[in-house]
This record gives sequence, structure tokens and C-alpha cells, in this order.
Amino acid sequence: MSVGILRKALSMTDQNVHTHQFENGLMLIVEEMPDVQSAAFSMLIPAGCVYDPPGQHGAASMLSDLLTRGAGERDSRELSSTLDNLGLQRSEHVGARHTSVYGAAVADKLNECLRIYGDILMRPVLPEDQFEAVRMGAEHSLLSIEDDPQRKTMIELRRRSFTRPWGLPADGSLADLPNITHNSLRSHFENCFRPNGSILGIAGKVDTQEVIQVVGEALGEWPQKPVLDVSPGETGPKRDFIEQDTAQTHIGLSYKSVAYPDPDYYNAWAAASVLSGGMSARLFTEVREKRGLCYSISASQASMKHEGRVICYAGTSNERAQETLDVTLQELKRLGDGIEQSELDRCKARAKSSLIMQQESSRGRASSLARNWFLLGEIRMLEEVREKIDALTVDSILEYVHRMPAEDFTVLTIGPKSLEVNS
Amino acid sequence: MSVGILRKALSMTDQNVHTHQFENGLMLIVEEMPDVQSAAFSMLIPAGCVYDPPGQHGAASMLSDLLTRGAGERDSRELSSTLDNLGLQRSEHVGARHTSVYGAAVADKLNECLRIYGDILMRPVLPEDQFEAVRMGAEHSLLSIEDDPQRKTMIELRRRSFTRPWGLPADGSLADLPNITHNSLRSHFENCFRPNGSILGIAGKVDTQEVIQVVGEALGEWPQKPVLDVSPGETGPKRDFIEQDTAQTHIGLSYKSVAYPDPDYYNAWAAASVLSGGMSARLFTEVREKRGLCYSISASQASMKHEGRVICYAGTSNERAQETLDVTLQELKRLGDGIEQSELDRCKARAKSSLIMQQESSRGRASSLARNWFLLGEIRMLEEVREKIDALTVDSILEYVHRMPAEDFTVLTIGPKSLEVNS
Repeated sequence: MSVGILRKALSMTDQNVHTHQFENGLMLIVEEMPDVQSAAFSMLIPAGCVYDPPGQHGAASMLSDLLTRGAGERDSRELSSTLDNLGLQRSEHVGARHTSVYGAAVADKLNECLRIYGDILMRPVLPEDQFEAVRMGAEHSLLSIEDDPQRKTMIELRRRSFTRPWGLPADGSLADLPNITHNSLRSHFENCFRPNGSILGIAGKVDTQEVIQVVGEALGEWPQKPVLDVSPGETGPKRDFIEQDTAQTHIGLSYKSVAYPDPDYYNAWAAASVLSGGMSARLFTEVREKRGLCYSISASQASMKHEGRVICYAGTSNERAQETLDVTLQELKRLGDGIEQSELDRCKARAKSSLIMQQESSRGRASSLARNWFLLGEIRMLEEVREKIDALTVDSILEYVHRMPAEDFTVLTIGPKSLEVNS
Repeated sequence: MSVGILRKALSMTDQNVHTHQFENGLMLIVEEMPDVQSAAFSMLIPAGCVYDPPGQHGAASMLSDLLTRGAGERDSRELSSTLDNLGLQRSEHVGARHTSVYGAAVADKLNECLRIYGDILMRPVLPEDQFEAVRMGAEHSLLSIEDDPQRKTMIELRRRSFTRPWGLPADGSLADLPNITHNSLRSHFENCFRPNGSILGIAGKVDTQEVIQVVGEALGEWPQKPVLDVSPGETGPKRDFIEQDTAQTHIGLSYKSVAYPDPDYYNAWAAASVLSGGMSARLFTEVREKRGLCYSISASQASMKHEGRVICYAGTSNERAQETLDVTLQELKRLGDGIEQSELDRCKARAKSSLIMQQESSRGRASSLARNWFLLGEIRMLEEVREKIDALTVDSILEYVHRMPAEDFTVLTIGPKSLEVNS
């Protein structure tokens, strides 16, 4: 692994990142990427599903659909048409903490897009006559999860793994759906959409001063609102089984890890990467390649700002399900027995390669800028990440694994028969 | 839509593409992208699932798994480790015509990756003792499709829509699986893996002369083999229903369109785009947004080299399934009644924006170079594509739609109850 060449490659495109906070609290982070033609934005608004009122889980998600059905002077059709005319590739996502809006376009269209998003965030129409279509869309989305047991496994595992309400699914539940009214969505908007706590990441062929001016015009007058509390609840249950007549048994399991800002985050990341990063990682070779126990297996580090878990999934035939769970648990626990230097070297090589490729995508950068600011309250340059990865040693990872061993698992399975957790 | 600015933006990064054919027939297409740090390759080998022997469907797909379990002097573990150490992000895909291998890495690792892929393509170990793991992996993959009715709908729709064997699923079937032996895979390799008919697209921070030399060293000695025939069979049935106790009804439908090399391809693409490109497209607004009939709906142009279809999917509640199918068919047929200039303008804007963003990705470019060479036998520069999109008019699209109307549908549904096709 030639670190010298990587360092040179990275430094060839020095990152040019600026931050600016508006008076109303809105945080803007801009990265100028002179070698691309595109520009992308990623905005985190503190309006995620943890703010759904009790008995109305799914409200934030439904609001994210209603939100783009007209804004300012434009009705739903005009708004979609205008954004399509700008060639904007866009999406919305509702997570635990945030409702996020993303967009990417040719750079010279960015300013117009930002002005329209000013309308969407501050002056959405939220038309009552489209509420029924939104409600039915939410119902169909929930039904589609029932027909996708792999996805359902991950959703139900997260629900049981994280402290409530952090693991609750943004889609809500069929049971809560009748309780959500047009008024619920309007209230969610009134309570949660605010500039203080919102973070806007922008990357691409842009000029920082121009971006600051345009964002100021579009969102500078957005009035502040009080910050809402989230009271943490319980986790669990630790063992659960959903009986379903599926062709495969779907296994979800998780165990405690560290939050994103934790100094041990990169050690935790490397430990998960030894298990599941790349084709030569342990779970892939032991469970899938050598034994053919399953077609799909993964473990990943899922770190939020305040807590983190390692989340694993395996899908396998009903006959081999018990063996798959046993072997997977064994591999997870075996991590504490030792890690080869060559395993760490591969993780480092893969991570550095990803870093270099990541810096070529305006979309990836915009998203990463906003997310990092939220999680760390600072910009972590790719060069800093590279240094942190370089600093990892077998000992530092093992020390972490011994402090936070794979134990006390939360296990959720979906299939025709329940499994024994032999841990 | 400011075409002037788009032209300027595109011409700022003139494409630098070269082709080179080796004596053994291997076709190489290289695009130099000086502004990126990465390099990517995409190789099409004429070893797709249409060459699976009768009664052994799934063999090509299983071979693609066995193929990377050791090559040259390296066993399976050493091969995976070496590629992970190079930071290579890789995948394999089996389609109708081709088995494809893809990779992306930091540019200075490309040569080493290509040398190793020379071993994989010419000197794979194909270890017999790993055949059972491969077979079980294939079985699990097939079982996972049974648990994913949306995916199953698309697979079963393609099977019925295209002339056999072109629509057959690469994954094969559980029925054929016991017929496939280690020897079947070895034969498939011996028969199909050859340089004549293979196409290698490479894009990124590369030097064309250096790439030609390295590829020549890696694959220049690969011996030619005879070209295999595919005898076309039947299509259909046109109406089919798979009864399954699903939460949603999954609707797949298709109708005839043109092949990729057809002069009308862009008219066909635009017609599908009016239906389903972007948030303001007809199916999305009529079926999903206005009526809330379903959560997921799409129509896309699926053009192979010799035939093409428009492929549609809708997933909806069992109660609204009949209405969803009726409204969808109505929208498809209504296309012949007229298209607004504004609808065409939006399609053009979206397409041009995608083109500009596409040229920033070495991975996207490598893939596109190889695919275009196969489908057209030439390189189509992004500028040419832009011109073809510019040349589209409402009249040219309508003329196409009248010549190839949405009719004679193939319809496949999965759910608890069958539907009426009122077309």
C-alpha cells in the first residue's frame, strides 16, 4: 500500500470548504469543486420522525410528501414542472432526527433551485385536498414493507435495538395511520421546520460568496422557533420472532457500539470492516463463500450522534437458518481473539480508495458536509479522515473490541420457525 | 431552458475517447478524464445466460461466482485479499447476452487490477471444492426472490415479454439447479469466455497508450473461440397471474417498443419519459400523486440490441389493484392523443442535466462506453446524444407513438386475486 501516492493524489485537489451561520441560526457549509460541472445540496431540517406525536407515528414522513405539493405561488403541478425543467434530481428522506431534502443539478441552475426550496421550506401550500392521496401513499408504502421481509427485518431490528424513539421507523404503522389528519401534518410543519438546527451543505462548481448571498435571500428571513425535546425511552425486546410463511429465514441482530463523535469511532468502524468490508472480509468468506450458508450477509456500523450499534443481516434457507445464526455469532465473538495485520491493511486500503472516489461526487460531498456538521459540529476534511484511518493499529482496534465486545445481542428473526440464540 | 449554456458546459470538458482492437478481437475503448483521480473498467464478455444449456438455466450466473474464487497463482482467499488491498470496488453481473465485470479504483492501481483480471478471465481456478458453496449461494438467491414479490414480478414479466431466451432470468430456477454440475460451469467457461466479442471500456485518469499496452499484456494472448448461435423461440403467455398471499398486488405490464440501434430509439425514450421521467411525469402525477392509487409506479424503455419493450410496474393495495391497472392502461393509451410542448421541454431538460452529471463519473463512463459499443458498434459522444435529444419534437414523438402504440400488452400480476385486463 503506497501511502505516499495516496497522499499526493488527495492533496492534488485540496478541499476548499467554508462555513457561514445566518442570524436566524441556519448553518451553511460550502465546498467549491472547480473540476465538476454540477452542484448539489443536502439540507437537514430538525423535523425527523422522533418528533411524531404519540399515536401518530408516520406524520413526519407524510408531511415530507405533502411538502412538495405546491409552494409559494406554485401549485403542486407547477412546482414539479419547474423543478423538472431545471433538470434537478431531487429526493426527500425522513430519518430519526431530520427530514432531509437533496438535490443535484447543472451548477448554473443551483441558485434558482435554492430560491424554490426557500418557498418549499418557508411557504409550502400543504394542500388539504391532496391529503387523501398522501394518506393512501403512506398506506401503500407500509403494505409494501409487509411484502419485503428483508426490509421488514431491518426496520423491526432497529425498532428493538435503539433507545426509543430513535429506532422507530419513519414510515410509522398501519395502526397509527387513521389517527393522522391534515392538521397533524400542518402542526408538524409549524413545530419542527425552523432555521435554527437546520444545516445546508452545498458542493460543486459554485462561488461561496454567491451561495451565501442566494441562501440569505432565500432563507435568511425564516423565523426561529423553539427547540423541541425528545425524551428517551426503553429498548428491546432483546429476542423476538415474527412468524411469517417466507421462503427464507431473515435474521437481524445488533450489539452495542459507539456513537459517531466518540474518539473510538474509527476503531469501531474498522472492527465492523474486518467483519464485513469487501469480499475478503470475515463474514463474507466464512458464512457465504466457504460454507454457502447464505446469499446475503452484512454487518455495518450504525452510529448516531448519541448512540451506536453494529447492525447485521443474514438471509438464508429455513433449513440452514440455525447454523447461519450460530456461525455468525461465533464470527462476531471471535473478533476479540485477534485481528491480522493484513486484515487491517485491507480495510485501510479500501477506506482510502473510497475517500478519493468520494471527493469526485458533488452529491456525496454535499451530503457528507451537512451530516458531519450535525454529528461533529465541525468540518472533517477528507485529509483528516485519512489521517485517522492511517493511525489505526491492530492493538487500537483490539483494545476497543475488548472494551465493547460483541455480546448482549438483540436478535429479531422473520420466518416460519424461531431460532435459538446460542450466545 | 438555456441550450447555449448547456452547450458551453459540455464543451468545457471535451471527451477524449480512443478505440483499439487487439488481434484476437478484443475491443478496447478508453476515455481519458484528466479531472478525476479514479479509473474504472467495465468488461462485457459474451457469456450471458442465453448460452445456458437447456435444463441448466442459472449456469452462467453460478460461473460468475466461481470465477473469482481463485485465478492464476492465487487461490480464492488470496485473490479477494489482493483486490481488496488495491482498494478495488468490484462487481459481476450476468445479463442475457453478457457476463460483465466492473471495477473502480484510484487511477494508479488500474494497471495492477487489469493484470489480475487477465488471470481471472483467462486462467481462473474454478475450484471444484467450492462448487457446493456456489450451488447453495444460487439456491439462496433464488429463494430470496420468492420473498420479494416486486422483484419476482419484474423477473416473471421479462420472461413472458421478450423472445426466448432473451427474457429468461439469469438466476435460473430451483427446478434446474440440481442439473447443474461443476462440469457445467467449466463447459460454460470453455465455450463462452473469449476475446472476440468481448468489449472493455475504461475511463478515468489514464493514459490511452499505457492502457493499450497493459491490456495487451494482460489479455492479448487470450485465444479466440467460435461464436455461439442463439436460436430465438417464443414469447408469452400474454396474460398470467401468480397467486400469492401478498399484502399488495404487484402489477407488471409491457408492450412493444424499438431496439436500441433503431433510428426511433430517442423518440421511444422520450415517450416513456413523458410517462415516467421525473416527478411531473404522467404516471407519477395521475396514478400516484393525484389519486394515491399506489406508492410505486414506473415505466421504462428496455431496449436490447435486437428488440425493445416498455416495461411498467405498479404496486398497490389489493382493493385498489383493478383501478390502478385500469388507470395505468388508460394513461399509456392516452399518449397517442397528444403531448404538450412543455412535457417535451421537461424531458429534454432532465436528459441534458443527466448527461452533464454522467460525464463526471468514471464508473458511469466506462460502463456506457462498453455498452454503447456493443449496441451500436460505435462510440456515441455525449455531445451527439445531446444533439439527438435537441432534435426531438412533439411531432416526431407522436409519429412514433402512432406507429408503435401502447397495445397488445403482456400483463403479469402477483397477488391474492387476478385482475381483468380492460384494454
